[in-house]
This record gives sequence, structure tokens and C-alpha cells, in this order.
Amino acid sequence: MEIYGEISKVRAAVKAWKKEGLTVGFVPTMGYLHEGHKSLIDAARKENDRVVVSIFVNPMQFGPTEDLESYPRDLKKDAALCEAAGVDIIFHPEPEEMYADGFCSYVDMNGLTTELCGKSRPIHFRGVQTVVLKLFHIVTPDRAYFGQKDAQQLAVIRRMVKDLNVDTRIIGCPIIREADGLAKSSRNTYLNAEERQAALVLSRSLKAGKALVDAGETRACVIKSAITAEIEKEPLAKIDYVDVVDFDTITPVEKLEGSILVAIAVYIGKTRLIDNFIVEK
Amino acid sequence: MEIYGEISKVRAAVKAWKKEGLTVGFVPTMGYLHEGHKSLIDAARKENDRVVVSIFVNPMQFGPTEDLESYPRDLKKDAALCEAAGVDIIFHPEPEEMYADGFCSYVDMNGLTTELCGKSRPIHFRGVQTVVLKLFHIVTPDRAYFGQKDAQQLAVIRRMVKDLNVDTRIIGCPIIREADGLAKSSRNTYLNAEERQAALVLSRSLKAGKALVDAGETRACVIKSAITAEIEKEPLAKIDYVDVVDFDTITPVEKLEGSILVAIAVYIGKTRLIDNFIVEK
Repeated sequence: MEIYGEISKVRAAVKAWKKEGLTVGFVPTMGYLHEGHKSLIDAARKENDRVVVSIFVNPMQFGPTEDLESYPRDLKKDAALCEAAGVDIIFHPEPEEMYADGFCSYVDMNGLTTELCGKSRPIHFRGVQTVVLKLFHIVTPDRAYFGQKDAQQLAVIRRMVKDLNVDTRIIGCPIIREADGLAKSSRNTYLNAEERQAALVLSRSLKAGKALVDAGETRACVIKSAITAEIEKEPLAKIDYVDVVDFDTITPVEKLEGSILVAIAVYIGKTRLIDNFIVEK
Repeated sequence: MEIYGEISKVRAAVKAWKKEGLTVGFVPTMGYLHEGHKSLIDAARKENDRVVVSIFVNPMQFGPTEDLESYPRDLKKDAALCEAAGVDIIFHPEPEEMYADGFCSYVDMNGLTTELCGKSRPIHFRGVQTVVLKLFHIVTPDRAYFGQKDAQQLAVIRRMVKDLNVDTRIIGCPIIREADGLAKSSRNTYLNAEERQAALVLSRSLKAGKALVDAGETRACVIKSAITAEIEKEPLAKIDYVDVVDFDTITPVEKLEGSILVAIAVYIGKTRLIDNFIVEK
């Protein structure tokens, strides 16, 4: 496995692979890898000849009051996980390599980015789209893997790739959870013991919502109310949003029909956590 | 030569070429080809194994009051010119092929697009960047050719390609002029006989500005004044802008230093024409 900080080195390696007719799977990450990322790498490993993982805490997707500086980093541990998982290249650039002097371009969309996380993180998805497209141009993957935990991000990337004719297949992978139900996230490391316990309210509330869906409930407002009520029982939890949206367009729906995303964002203390489930109706 | 309307056909052809190790030159156009386009195609023909020309009047780069509907079109004549110039593929999609249902993504930049044409055409460069990036993703050219007549467009595309790590080399080609000095443009067809004569004020005024530069003048305001005065002599002409900017950043300069763009946009009757020259200091 190689660890490259330079765009030119990744490009050269990938071009050599492509010349041999090899396929490339790509897993873009911000590092501090956990079993969620591992599941993406495993999927990439299974379906491609070569696997590239990027580790880049992307300044452009953090708001001015967000956790860019404190976002957890551990390249040594990440490299060990990647090596063991059969990754061929880690791309780990410095911000200056990605955002050179005079950088001013961006990718964005009208729609999909205004609801859910877009409400409280107004510049987040612009930053995500821009860096992901840059990474796609550098790595030119046949397939790229994104976790369903960041469901809105997955929908946005799918839309961007379709709209801009990017020749990469986007693969969404299921949420990986701790044994007690908490969705794996690098940000879980921010939680103290009490908050860690309180954070279970996310998966528990979604379970309550899912139970209603399984019982035949199709009114979005009823499902939202049930989830909201469950979260409000937890004193350490503060709701950012509880929403039921069309998974393709990320617009609110009243009735469950088609591909539906039930998504929540909840502050546990100062830590903002997200979770969701998807219903195909 | 093939004429394709489908993205998938262009993609398949280019992939087959790339498999053979052939290089691809690309000339994106809105059709109604003239000697300016021809010079781009010739350059592409000389420097690449295969040449693709796109002909697409891109709705996204026209403002609501602009000339999208009346923009001149003549595919038959264009195809003959391309065939004679040794083009391998014309990509001529319908708008629906390029902008499918639910399309909402765009590429834009902070900077470079606010001055010059960006002032009177606020959404123009967003449309240009978006369609050019889409076309780059479809054609995956090694080199793409743009005329210097659209100097701001050339600067914007260069910046976009650099910022987003697009693996295509952007080649700027000199302005091609009629014998009497008028820069070739598909929009010249809008001019009646009297306007056609009046339109010579663009190249004549720039000549006056260039003469000052050649004589050692480095103050932007003096050059602007001389060009403005020359244009104002022509009763059919109405100035949109006369500007002296840094060619890389498209920001106004006071002194000529580095790579400088002297650019004008002038209405001749209802037809808006542009012209420019570049100074390397």
C-alpha cells in the first residue's frame, strides 16, 4: 500500500492501472476510520481490481462555527486499517494541495441541499460536492462507495454524478451500527459516557418510526410525531430535525410513496449526530 | 465522420479510441461555424489523433431576455465544414439529452465571472462552466480548444479546470478576423449592412488602444479613455463595457503588468459584440 499526498502521484498510479485495463474502486473519507468505512472498503475491494481511499478533512464543507479543527484524526490507525483491508493507495493531501492559490470554483445544486442537514449547514453540501468531484477527477474511479448514514450526501452525489455526466457508478452501502444500535460515526468520539448512553435515542426513535411503517402507517406526520416524541423523552437530546422526504429529491412528503428517507439530526450535548432509515414503497 | 445525438454513443466511441491509446482533441461550439471555429478544429486536428466537435446551443448560458431562440443554426453547413476539416465526431444533442428531468446541478466560481460580460450576463458563465464540464465528462478530451475572442470564457474555463483537477489541457487560440478587422462571430449575421460597417468601430478602437500600449503607455485609465472616445464617435454604437483587467483573475487593474486583457463589449443596434486584445508585460 502507498500513501500519497500529491495529486500527480495518484493520477500516475491510476493511469498505469487503467492502461492495464484494471478497474478502480474509490472510498472518499475524512479519516478516523471505523467499521462503517471498513464496510465501504470491503465492498470496493470485492468489486474492483484496485482500491483507493482518500483521507481528507475537507475545510470547504465545514461552517465557520463547526468542528473543523477538533475533527478527530489518526492517520497511523487509518493506514493500518486500510492496509489490512487490502487498500492499494491512500490519498492524504494537505489542504494546500487541494485548494491552491486563487481557488474559487465550486459545484452546487438548486434543490436537494436545502432540507435536512442543509438547513443547519448551509455551505456543507457545496463543499462536499466540490471536493468529491475534484477527487473523482483525480482518482477517475469506476465505482465510488458512500455510506447510507449520510443519506442526503448520497442523494446529492448521485444527483451530481447524473447531472454532470460523471462516468463513475455511485454505490450506497448500509449503515453500520454498534451492538446497541448507535450508528458508527467518527463524531461518536466526542461523546462522554453519559452522552454515549443518551445517543441511543437516535436509533431507538427510528426503530419506533420503522415499527409504525411496518404496521402500515403511510402518513409522514404520524411517523414524524412518533419519532419526535421518543427523542423528547431523552433530556440530553435536542432535535435539529426529524423529517420524511423523497430520497431522490430530498423534498418533504406527506405520504410514504416511492423511495422515502426518514432522517433525523439530534444534538446530544454539543455533538450533532445523524441517523436514518429508507423505505421503498 | 459520425453525427451523434446520444451521450452514450459519443462515450462508447471515445472509450474505444482511448483503448487504442489515441488522443482526443475537443472543440465545443454552439454551431453556425465560421473560420474562427475552423481554426480551433485545425489546431485540434494537428495535435490529436481524433477530433470531436460539439454543436449545442446551450439554453443554460442564455439569460431570459437574450437570443436563445434566434441564435443562428445551420447543421448541414456545419457538418460540411467539419467533414472537410477532418472531424471524426460531431456531438449534436437535443437539450433534453443534456438536461434530463430533475437536473439541478451547476458549476460556478467566486471571482472571474463578475466583471466584463458577467455584469450584463449574470448567469452566463454558470451555464458555460456547467455545460463545458458536462461535455468534458462525456468526451474526456486530452486537449480542448477555445477561441481568445471569448477571453473571459477562456479564463473561466482555465480556472475551472485547474480548480477542479480536470485532466484536460485547455488551449487558447487567436482571434480570427474578417479582412476589414471585424472579429468573426456567429452573431455578426444579425447585422444589417449599415451596422456591419459600424461594427468596425470595435477593432478600430482596440487598435487605437493597442497603439498606445505599443508606445509605452501603462496606465489602464488612459487606454480605456482612448478606446471609449473612439467608440463614441460611432453613432450606432453603445458601449456595454471597456475594461482593462488581469487576464488570470479578471479583476480591474490600474497599471499594465503581467498578463493583461483589454476587452470591450459594444451594442451595434440591438446586436451585442465583443472583442479584445491581450498584452504580456
